[in-house]
Amino acid sequence: MKSLDVIFKPQSVAVVGASTRAGSLGRNLFDKMLAADFNGPIYPVHPTAKYVHSVKAYPTILEVPGPVDLAVIVVPREQVLQTVQQCAQKDVKGLIVITAGFKETGSEGTTREKALLEIVKAHNLRMVGPNCMGVICTDPNVRLDATFAGAYPPTGKIAFASQSGALGVTILDYAGSLNLGVSMFVSLGNKADISGNDLLEYWRDDPSVDVVLMYLESFGNPRKFVQLAREVSRRKPIVMVKSGRSEAGARAVSSHTGAIAGADLAFDALFAQCGVLRANTIEEMFDFAMGFANQPLPQGDRVAIVTNAGGPAIMATDACESLGLRLASLAPKTQQRLRERLLPEASVANPVDLLPAANEDDYQFTLEQILQDDGVDAIIVISVPPISADAIKVARRISAVAEKSNKTVLGCFMGIKGLAAAAAELQKQAMPAFSFPESAARSLAAMVRYAQWRERKMGEFPAYSVHRDMATEIISAAKKAGRERLTDWEAFQVLLAYGIPIVGSRICRNLDETLAAAHALGYPVVLKASAAEVIHKSDIGGVQLNLRHEADLKTAFHKLSMRLKGLGIPLEQAQFLVQKMVEGGREVLLGINQAPAFGSIVAFGLGGIYVEALKDIALRVTPLTTEDAPDMVQSIRGLAILQGMRGEKPVAFDKLYETILRISQLAQDFPEIIEMDINPFLLFHEAEKCVAADVRMRVSIEK
Amino acid sequence: MKSLDVIFKPQSVAVVGASTRAGSLGRNLFDKMLAADFNGPIYPVHPTAKYVHSVKAYPTILEVPGPVDLAVIVVPREQVLQTVQQCAQKDVKGLIVITAGFKETGSEGTTREKALLEIVKAHNLRMVGPNCMGVICTDPNVRLDATFAGAYPPTGKIAFASQSGALGVTILDYAGSLNLGVSMFVSLGNKADISGNDLLEYWRDDPSVDVVLMYLESFGNPRKFVQLAREVSRRKPIVMVKSGRSEAGARAVSSHTGAIAGADLAFDALFAQCGVLRANTIEEMFDFAMGFANQPLPQGDRVAIVTNAGGPAIMATDACESLGLRLASLAPKTQQRLRERLLPEASVANPVDLLPAANEDDYQFTLEQILQDDGVDAIIVISVPPISADAIKVARRISAVAEKSNKTVLGCFMGIKGLAAAAAELQKQAMPAFSFPESAARSLAAMVRYAQWRERKMGEFPAYSVHRDMATEIISAAKKAGRERLTDWEAFQVLLAYGIPIVGSRICRNLDETLAAAHALGYPVVLKASAAEVIHKSDIGGVQLNLRHEADLKTAFHKLSMRLKGLGIPLEQAQFLVQKMVEGGREVLLGINQAPAFGSIVAFGLGGIYVEALKDIALRVTPLTTEDAPDMVQSIRGLAILQGMRGEKPVAFDKLYETILRISQLAQDFPEIIEMDINPFLLFHEAEKCVAADVRMRVSIEK
Repeated sequence: MKSLDVIFKPQSVAVVGASTRAGSLGRNLFDKMLAADFNGPIYPVHPTAKYVHSVKAYPTILEVPGPVDLAVIVVPREQVLQTVQQCAQKDVKGLIVITAGFKETGSEGTTREKALLEIVKAHNLRMVGPNCMGVICTDPNVRLDATFAGAYPPTGKIAFASQSGALGVTILDYAGSLNLGVSMFVSLGNKADISGNDLLEYWRDDPSVDVVLMYLESFGNPRKFVQLAREVSRRKPIVMVKSGRSEAGARAVSSHTGAIAGADLAFDALFAQCGVLRANTIEEMFDFAMGFANQPLPQGDRVAIVTNAGGPAIMATDACESLGLRLASLAPKTQQRLRERLLPEASVANPVDLLPAANEDDYQFTLEQILQDDGVDAIIVISVPPISADAIKVARRISAVAEKSNKTVLGCFMGIKGLAAAAAELQKQAMPAFSFPESAARSLAAMVRYAQWRERKMGEFPAYSVHRDMATEIISAAKKAGRERLTDWEAFQVLLAYGIPIVGSRICRNLDETLAAAHALGYPVVLKASAAEVIHKSDIGGVQLNLRHEADLKTAFHKLSMRLKGLGIPLEQAQFLVQKMVEGGREVLLGINQAPAFGSIVAFGLGGIYVEALKDIALRVTPLTTEDAPDMVQSIRGLAILQGMRGEKPVAFDKLYETILRISQLAQDFPEIIEMDINPFLLFHEAEKCVAADVRMRVSIEK
Repeated sequence: MKSLDVIFKPQSVAVVGASTRAGSLGRNLFDKMLAADFNGPIYPVHPTAKYVHSVKAYPTILEVPGPVDLAVIVVPREQVLQTVQQCAQKDVKGLIVITAGFKETGSEGTTREKALLEIVKAHNLRMVGPNCMGVICTDPNVRLDATFAGAYPPTGKIAFASQSGALGVTILDYAGSLNLGVSMFVSLGNKADISGNDLLEYWRDDPSVDVVLMYLESFGNPRKFVQLAREVSRRKPIVMVKSGRSEAGARAVSSHTGAIAGADLAFDALFAQCGVLRANTIEEMFDFAMGFANQPLPQGDRVAIVTNAGGPAIMATDACESLGLRLASLAPKTQQRLRERLLPEASVANPVDLLPAANEDDYQFTLEQILQDDGVDAIIVISVPPISADAIKVARRISAVAEKSNKTVLGCFMGIKGLAAAAAELQKQAMPAFSFPESAARSLAAMVRYAQWRERKMGEFPAYSVHRDMATEIISAAKKAGRERLTDWEAFQVLLAYGIPIVGSRICRNLDETLAAAHALGYPVVLKASAAEVIHKSDIGGVQLNLRHEADLKTAFHKLSMRLKGLGIPLEQAQFLVQKMVEGGREVLLGINQAPAFGSIVAFGLGGIYVEALKDIALRVTPLTTEDAPDMVQSIRGLAILQGMRGEKPVAFDKLYETILRISQLAQDFPEIIEMDINPFLLFHEAEKCVAADVRMRVSIEK
């Protein structure tokens, strides 16, 4: 695969479809490219025109005198294939296909796109699009603006890929208005060749990129994305807006864990696993980007707030606390120094309130003191009207102080009149300036989260020694017999093969065997009816708990037999599972599901009906690292139940992590397991008591 | 009490402390008032100046020749009391005290504020402030701008009160920039006299006010607020930013339900009960206000989205769904008409995508068709670059169509370049225009929620016939004995007195009584140790469940006796409660707590340890209406557990509602109950089986 340099760093460009007609895409594109002052020749290609915007034009790319690295194609859809053929003949290396009318328009377009991609692959070209709005590279040695709309952004360290052209333009405009410097921009269009993953790989190694922003509606290869992103986000933050949540919800994991998973949880899992920061909106993405692009990462989560008015400081405090940041306690020495200098009514505890009369010297002094305080990792500086001081002077002073420190400083200039200029001044100094305290807090929280992710160990993919052959045998037998659903006994055997502890169990065919099994296991026992038709056993009352004597067991056996009969299941097709009744323990659910393109997903949550009612579940895409398992366990709301409440001891977390990782290994080894639910898995304080008490497993029987 | 007309609608004003010094508060204030063209004379009062800004000045207010309705006071803090005395002497009716240096500065200031309030009360004046930034009334017959900073806003129907002066200015500036018309604005300052409640009462009846916005940090009288707001919000929406969430959290309800309640839940309860729409940020408040101020309320929650680009429409869809709005299904007729007119690639199902080339005619046609569709309650119209059409033309056409319809139409113009002008054009036509699709969705969701609230019945405060005397006797006895904590038996008796069903129970002193009680109730039973020292019985293993035989009971009795002994509690001070063991049932928690200023609060949530771990609890301030009870039950996340899962029947909801209302009555009758926890209250499908299985109650023993 060729490096994407052929797209972003060409030395010569042809615009095929450059137009002389004002307002046309072909004309806009050519004009913008010229205006950006591209470092190399730009050749307009037009069937008849002698020149375009005063530059000599050529009837086809083949007539262009010198070599052409990159061709930007804006010809009518019918001419695209021929044009690309000529590009290949001309030994062009990169293509940006602006022209629409491909996959997005139905079957004819899809056919055209396939043909296009064939030519691209055959000649080892790289292509952005089709149906895109272009590419920008602000590298001073390149200065490529191959887009037909949107402002050429200021030069900087942000790389941005957008699956929506319209949002791309919007975002370029906003970046400009916020003075957010951009390194590269790509409108991905139909992603026929170059995908988000390709860009991640390219940007990973590009020193001109410090922050990656992405707006995506779909993922071609989420598994590859996880691998890549895990690596990239060690080096630079990836901020992602993934839209189409509702659609994703519909596609998401099936069966009843599917209902639990609900919309979009698979993507949340994906992003959590690879350190990707998900922004819910474009606005939030900008909030994040402002911090990452302009300030050092915080060393911790202790925030100081400096303000000249109480209200916004309270709002900042609320926002910080709700986002999990900590309000720093200022050292007595810091407070004393502030007290000596500031007005007696000023508050010198965090939030530090300088009062409305504060001027730029007060801000500077205060920031300097607080930046020296070892108990502070970051500062949010707020300034609101009415201020006696010149807001621009305050802004300049804030950025001057911040520049000298390696701590994180974020500005918040509220109000429109006058303060817009001050905010612009801060931004000019590459200081993040927000309009609302909540935005500053959101940005800081994302930075803290990312800094923590970077500190986190990478983790390993453990390989437990398991009886894979035994599991293969059981699963193959079921597949051979055309049975999607494994029997309880088979499913338990698979767990055993993978070293997942199960409750003492015996499989029986009739009452005599059942009584003997109970005798061997010891009362009290549980009796379960098992047949392919009986999925949710408790729905039909198919589980008989707490059978204390032989008499109880006999009654239960009779009851279940009648129920099966009622369901039309002949007794000889049923199995009865006798299990030791385990009392106490905290119930959790552990499972495997499939999501299209994601492959196998491991699910964990509180067990019993609570998991369904409260949707308190964590998912992770396989394979899981040794860090993913604790991470997913600690992400559920009901964690306190496992940690122990009212003096209860914590469950054996290490055993739980190991079990989750063994399940991950099982899912990896057997992608044909389309669904598995261990519900409940019973957790105790003692690792050796933890067991799977019930399990359902379905496999794909397609060859 | 005088109407607040004396503040907002004076016919003559004096500015006491008007200054000739440029940039001073006294000068700014006078200049702004003059610039606003107040409909009446403005008298500057200055000790020595002959005139201020060309207007004849007077040395004291007593020298002013004509009557003065309103005095705006900006004199130094030391002169405020004397000035107000003179105002009273002059028969001034209203005061706005800008001067700071009162309660907010410590004890000296507090004393000064008390003295100020005494003069105000003695002369039956009304006062805004002190320590505020003033008042605005844009009524064309008034045109009062008594503020020293911030833009004079456009005239409109929004009334806004802010407890923070700084945020007030910010908000005035934003309102102007969004062309949001304001009727009245008040900076509340220290709220010594005029409070948020006074304003609510005033604005309730003022026909110039359609929407009430409030930024508050504290509530003087939340109970009165509930009553007022419940009434006001039937007529006009109240949008509230309540900050100081963390502080409120600290003050919130105590004991372990306190920990559950967590930060700020009491305020959420308060607002939920009276239809107040809580905005989390100033930005969100503006989002809400834009919708309410400019568009009719939606008749339902079915939204259509019209766009010229896919990306933003997907984001709008995501936002609508996550906010509980429904995507409308367009009627086949509507789709057919759109299909006949629009480009073949356009999507005519919701979201309707007109494609980038759409012009103002396409927008108009499409909106007209969809507004006629009976399945649509509201439309979000999105327009993003690149658009071939003139964005301003599109904006004008959208507002023209929307104006003719009684359905809700919200605009979203993304991007900066060019589109800012289009958004301004929409706003000029009093159409809400947002920059991001999520803001439009948030606004619409608030409107739908408010419309539903207005539709909701008011509900009644039921009065059950109860044995109040019996409860009085039990509670008085405990108080007399200096016991905060009622015994289990006493607490159960109080429940019985209020018609709250309890599990079959007997109180015993020794083993013999215990055995006899169990025999009478029938096994299995539960045995509980009871003594003032034993609060969380399960913490010390003080509850022995599922005792099936006399032998079990004896062992349990012995165990508990030993435990009590271990805790240093003599056996003769202990009581033993024998209760029928109730099996099955769904556990909920019902309780009473106190929050300062709020008074009694009723709590409801899932029972057992889940309520603590998952913090899934709803609170309501007493007294509750018949509508509040179902509302609070339906607000918990775990509702599905009560509705019945996997074929289980629903619990007796009516019985639950009734029990909640009886608890509300108990809390109202006995404000000295500072804490009560029924945990668990057991719910069954059959109303007559529902019972309180355990209860703790604490009363205040202060006289």
